[in-house]
Amino acid sequence: MVIVMKKGAKDSDIQAVVAHIHKNGNEADVSSGPNRTVIGVIGDTLKFELSEFLMDPMVDKAYRITVPYKLASRSYKRDDTVVMVGNVPVGNGSFTVIAGPCAIESRDQMMAAAIAVKKSGANILRGGAFKPRTSPYSFQGMGVEGLKLLKEAGELTGLPVVSELMSTADYDVVAEHVDLIQIGARNMQNFSLLKCVGRGDKPVLLKRGMSATLEELLVAAEYIMAEGNRNVILCERGIRTFEKYMRNTLDLNVVTAIKEMSHLPILIDPSHASGRRNMVIPMARASAAIKADGVMVEVHANPDEALCDGGQSLYPEHFEELMQSVRVVHEAVRDL
Amino acid sequence: MVIVMKKGAKDSDIQAVVAHIHKNGNEADVSSGPNRTVIGVIGDTLKFELSEFLMDPMVDKAYRITVPYKLASRSYKRDDTVVMVGNVPVGNGSFTVIAGPCAIESRDQMMAAAIAVKKSGANILRGGAFKPRTSPYSFQGMGVEGLKLLKEAGELTGLPVVSELMSTADYDVVAEHVDLIQIGARNMQNFSLLKCVGRGDKPVLLKRGMSATLEELLVAAEYIMAEGNRNVILCERGIRTFEKYMRNTLDLNVVTAIKEMSHLPILIDPSHASGRRNMVIPMARASAAIKADGVMVEVHANPDEALCDGGQSLYPEHFEELMQSVRVVHEAVRDL
Amino acid sequence: MVIVMKKGAKDSDIQAVVAHIHKNGNEADVSSGPNRTVIGVIGDTLKFELSEFLMDPMVDKAYRITVPYKLASRSYKRDDTVVMVGNVPVGNGSFTVIAGPCAIESRDQMMAAAIAVKKSGANILRGGAFKPRTSPYSFQGMGVEGLKLLKEAGELTGLPVVSELMSTADYDVVAEHVDLIQIGARNMQNFSLLKCVGRGDKPVLLKRGMSATLEELLVAAEYIMAEGNRNVILCERGIRTFEKYMRNTLDLNVVTAIKEMSHLPILIDPSHASGRRNMVIPMARASAAIKADGVMVEVHANPDEALCDGGQSLYPEHFEELMQSVRVVHEAVRDL
Amino acid sequence: MVIVMKKGAKDSDIQAVVAHIHKNGNEADVSSGPNRTVIGVIGDTLKFELSEFLMDPMVDKAYRITVPYKLASRSYKRDDTVVMVGNVPVGNGSFTVIAGPCAIESRDQMMAAAIAVKKSGANILRGGAFKPRTSPYSFQGMGVEGLKLLKEAGELTGLPVVSELMSTADYDVVAEHVDLIQIGARNMQNFSLLKCVGRGDKPVLLKRGMSATLEELLVAAEYIMAEGNRNVILCERGIRTFEKYMRNTLDLNVVTAIKEMSHLPILIDPSHASGRRNMVIPMARASAAIKADGVMVEVHANPDEALCDGGQSLYPEHFEELMQSVRVVHEAVRDL
Repeated sequence: MVIVMKKGAKDSDIQAVVAHIHKNGNEADVSSGPNRTVIGVIGDTLKFELSEFLMDPMVDKAYRITVPYKLASRSYKRDDTVVMVGNVPVGNGSFTVIAGPCAIESRDQMMAAAIAVKKSGANILRGGAFKPRTSPYSFQGMGVEGLKLLKEAGELTGLPVVSELMSTADYDVVAEHVDLIQIGARNMQNFSLLKCVGRGDKPVLLKRGMSATLEELLVAAEYIMAEGNRNVILCERGIRTFEKYMRNTLDLNVVTAIKEMSHLPILIDPSHASGRRNMVIPMARASAAIKADGVMVEVHANPDEALCDGGQSLYPEHFEELMQSVRVVHEAVRDL
Repeated sequence: MVIVMKKGAKDSDIQAVVAHIHKNGNEADVSSGPNRTVIGVIGDTLKFELSEFLMDPMVDKAYRITVPYKLASRSYKRDDTVVMVGNVPVGNGSFTVIAGPCAIESRDQMMAAAIAVKKSGANILRGGAFKPRTSPYSFQGMGVEGLKLLKEAGELTGLPVVSELMSTADYDVVAEHVDLIQIGARNMQNFSLLKCVGRGDKPVLLKRGMSATLEELLVAAEYIMAEGNRNVILCERGIRTFEKYMRNTLDLNVVTAIKEMSHLPILIDPSHASGRRNMVIPMARASAAIKADGVMVEVHANPDEALCDGGQSLYPEHFEELMQSVRVVHEAVRDL
Repeated sequence: MVIVMKKGAKDSDIQAVVAHIHKNGNEADVSSGPNRTVIGVIGDTLKFELSEFLMDPMVDKAYRITVPYKLASRSYKRDDTVVMVGNVPVGNGSFTVIAGPCAIESRDQMMAAAIAVKKSGANILRGGAFKPRTSPYSFQGMGVEGLKLLKEAGELTGLPVVSELMSTADYDVVAEHVDLIQIGARNMQNFSLLKCVGRGDKPVLLKRGMSATLEELLVAAEYIMAEGNRNVILCERGIRTFEKYMRNTLDLNVVTAIKEMSHLPILIDPSHASGRRNMVIPMARASAAIKADGVMVEVHANPDEALCDGGQSLYPEHFEELMQSVRVVHEAVRDL
Repeated sequence: MVIVMKKGAKDSDIQAVVAHIHKNGNEADVSSGPNRTVIGVIGDTLKFELSEFLMDPMVDKAYRITVPYKLASRSYKRDDTVVMVGNVPVGNGSFTVIAGPCAIESRDQMMAAAIAVKKSGANILRGGAFKPRTSPYSFQGMGVEGLKLLKEAGELTGLPVVSELMSTADYDVVAEHVDLIQIGARNMQNFSLLKCVGRGDKPVLLKRGMSATLEELLVAAEYIMAEGNRNVILCERGIRTFEKYMRNTLDLNVVTAIKEMSHLPILIDPSHASGRRNMVIPMARASAAIKADGVMVEVHANPDEALCDGGQSLYPEHFEELMQSVRVVHEAVRDL
């Protein structure tokens, strides 16, 4: 950390900051220039918050030199982490496709979708049983019944399955039925939930919050990892900007950035960002081109009857087109 | 709802949309202009999501005519809701001040702060026992021990108390110790938590998420109210923008907007937005001028020793100045 | 400036950065901690851009210690700048009200509005002659004819006048007719225009761009001041955020922030931000409470006939109410 | 346009809105549901601003059904526009690469860069002569001398050239030396400048403002086109979001969106968004995958000596790698 004192800070002001640094067992490096005095904090700074220093009225600025996460950082672990979801490796250079309906609505629907995505080559099956809906009056998901159908569909097709966990109270039942537990964007900073899945042994798919910085995403991952569970897959699903044409702005930049900041795999969810079906396939192609570890898309055997988020769901024929597209691009860029 | 078809939509395309509307028991009003066909949805539209229509490739746009919340809306209830927190009314035209330390750290600290804020005229005492900290390595709060100290401080001073609930698992113990349950900004769309406090009978202080629209804030309130609990107080605490000078941008516009959209009380938390102590008092004055129902501020008997968020905490003498300022402004604008 | 090297930077990497610093006549202070090497740049850093250092693949981060503007900074000039607009001082602790129609549309309209705002106590008269309209098909303003009417209205009422300059080609004619030249938000980084008004001797009202940081606003002021013209008044008019209820989010935080960063006066324009008339008066009250140097509002003698931006214009009776409100609040907070 | 009246609007309120619609020669379609009255505006709505209706206190909402631009819209012109830049077609399905130094600094530098990018296969040569620099104290470009060097470099290599125009006063000299005139992001809503290049006959490269919506970008293009010049190429260069890792967030979604909204070509500038060299090539690959019409990148023969924006400039060897990458991806997706 670097602490910049205000112009006019006196020796006693500087010593107060140094004392606060020492109190936590760190060393201080004071460097007084003609304009300002700059104090470096030497040692482990993970426990410090910048605000502790900014509270001092004689402190002008405070910056982090090292990142506020450790286990999730590339400097802690140089090699890419490969997370096994059932028997499917994520993060090993292949391009993983997770597909299935937004919400599980019935046995027929779940099985039809599962068979369709398996046929086109999906690697992991998704299906929402507990749904975080914007409105309390919208369909909230089938719950445990949905989980059972998802598990059955996974067994039918031989695909590992993923579903969202919304409450610590449901951890056991969700963990029992899925191979990968999803934490949704709205719960990215639900720290109780993060700690809960961190104590478990199921891999976690952690979605970036709609207005979360990449640093915050990695600190959220750190919450999980610090509890013991190192099998975290990150997922970008669109951020909130001023643009109104799309519901959210899918941020592909994260792939390159996360690969530099962290060793964790990063997937792209192009279905939810735009809310427009015609943007899903182009964005999936771009995800492959920028070397994301895969995509997660919604496929509904009959989108016109979907009870939730039908807008961005692909029909099976579109999904088949998507699979061909990403294969072609993944192949083309593999050796670049 | 208004559905705008794409140019070139055929009769069969229009009928498909009409059929979807009918299927949910609503009526459709089709209006074909020279350029576009516009379809109005007549009847209760709370269960529809715009995305259900946007999924149709022949639909260009879809707008809501009525708001996606009901119980929280001003049109459902014209009169201002007054929420009783212990014996303190919030929303009745008075200016409520909630004050106390960010985190409860010790008995001495809690009591000193409680006595100080009571002396200056605060109406409700706050204190964090479960803390949503950005980093897993930061102080996470004293938990139940903290709640006990808070309750004791409330009894000592005669002030009702508020503290944050982070997990459904802690509902009972938090509800037992406080008069008002806070849902933090990061949990504004933690729907499991919203439903949980909605089923209880303690009033709820619901903070706006850092990137939540006002509509989303009111739908979050609706989640609570739909479960039965109508005692919801809203709180603005700063939104995420591109500006870097402040940590968050406190959005005072919400006061006037919420008063038009809803009957619920709205408070302002000027402590967390800026992360800068010198901005707290000016913003509190402005909150009174714009007729917010009150403010919530952090006061620490000795901010230099605060374990959390010290930066924006006021010293008792600053808090005394704040109280005098807001009284003067509240008095001045009362009859405007 | 502080340059943070990447972990693993070698001596030669560090020396390359030091050499770049020396080449520009500055000194370097190298501080090697156990994790990272941090290099301080000592001397004038106004000519450096952070990107010059970030380009180096072995540089991790680069921060400014001092601000990237000088003449506009509070540390360069401790005393508040008072800008004289005609005979009206702006920035001397009084609360200046600029009022008048969005666009000048006719002689009758301009005179009626001028008389109305003068009667209620406005200090400066506004009126748009060259209008930056979103659409090329919208009314673009009366141009020079409008300026003449504005000048006449100013003489009639004894009020100094302000109007917007959109092009360097119009500088002479605008400067000839007004007492204060407005640079609109969309032109805040039109550097040619900034330099142009900087070479003139008319005071400048510089509006913050819709997505400009406060630092960028002050650097834009610096562009003007560096050319010689030190009479710059800043104006906040709403920033672009994700919120959809208001057109823009008026950011009152800027008042306190700018007062700390700079010596220049800061006004608030509450008319354009919200696009909703009912938000203008509350925000004007809050502006007075937070000690802005004044407000700029739109008043139209008959808003229903306004050719431009009618939505947020006040009727004369509303304006009278606004004047009374801000007077009451300004009086109340004067000695706080 | 659709105007939604507030609940409780009376017949006279509705008639007032209808009268305003009639006054402008349009027809009104009034549809009264049980909750709200909705009024459709039939006829040309380009001259209406939504704010004209929102000003009415009995109007709740107002939406556009048709877009606020015409000449730039896909519905006005179905076929893709191909803009000829010298002898280089942009928008015909090929992938155009514009490359060259950020700023022209010397004859040697310009020629070296031109030869390097030509050798790797660039189609158009760029070079900044008038530079919009954040700071008034930074290098502002070589001006006319730079334009001459750029033209010479274009002739030397046989590449058409592009450079930025910052002021209407420089139009003639810039137009004389270049084949394509760039309007920078900061001037996207400098309407005087847009009209100026609209009256000329040189093709225009219009960059999206840092916080401009796609609709605003197309309305800016409309400003140019309405003056007669139909040769407009759009360019995305990153938008302003809350994320701090990158300087700006490159928004690849625009490609698919613009292709639906407009017939104009759309390029991607991956150099300026991130401010990080390591993100340029991956984003260029993704641009090809999503079927942008090309990219615009900065190449400096010796980036370490660049006077401006060195951080994101590619060395010639990186540019060679970029060219190979985009060729491979463009080839792979051509028939998808």
